[in-house]
Amino acid sequence: MSIAEPFFRHHVFFCCNQRGPGETCCNNAGASELRAYAKDRVKALGLNGQGKVRINQAGCLDRCDSGPVMVVYPEGVWYTFIDREDVDEIIHEHLQQGRIVERLRVE
Amino acid sequence: MSIAEPFFRHHVFFCCNQRGPGETCCNNAGASELRAYAKDRVKALGLNGQGKVRINQAGCLDRCDSGPVMVVYPEGVWYTFIDREDVDEIIHEHLQQGRIVERLRVE
Repeated sequence: MSIAEPFFRHHVFFCCNQRGPGETCCNNAGASELRAYAKDRVKALGLNGQGKVRINQAGCLDRCDSGPVMVVYPEGVWYTFIDREDVDEIIHEHLQQGRIVERLRVE
Repeated sequence: MSIAEPFFRHHVFFCCNQRGPGETCCNNAGASELRAYAKDRVKALGLNGQGKVRINQAGCLDRCDSGPVMVVYPEGVWYTFIDREDVDEIIHEHLQQGRIVERLRVE
């Protein structure tokens, strides 16, 4: 199978799944707020758009035990994150410089 | 950057964005119903799970003019689709056989 030139250089999906009260889910760990923050930061840095970066929300990515999680494609690199500093580091290192942030990586 | 062994062999995201009445969006073209169909079919075929296939919903993938759209990662192949037959063809050809369905492909 031929690999296409990616429409987005980095396509990021945040799991924003919301489960019921008391159940573990990415959204209870602040995923939606941090997804919105990432989207705003990427836009402010001029990184968004075709051939560049897209930040998306997604349904349950089925990695609840490692959550909150995001995945960056086409690399297929998964990250967890706690706060805006973590998101900033992923933006600055991975999305801008192409360097994996090993301390936040989920195998 | 090293490329990780993908957690999912094929990670499929359906744009299920819902805009207001009269506005063009993937969900008005049946995206959510066909996403649910794809998820059920993949499960029935035993294709779902780690190292295999994951079918996800996503927010707006910003390709509204080509919608409804899905994207398959890590390949980065985009498809449009109209009905269950299209979804079946993508499942059988791409997800099972690794062959791109050119007639449904969106560049």
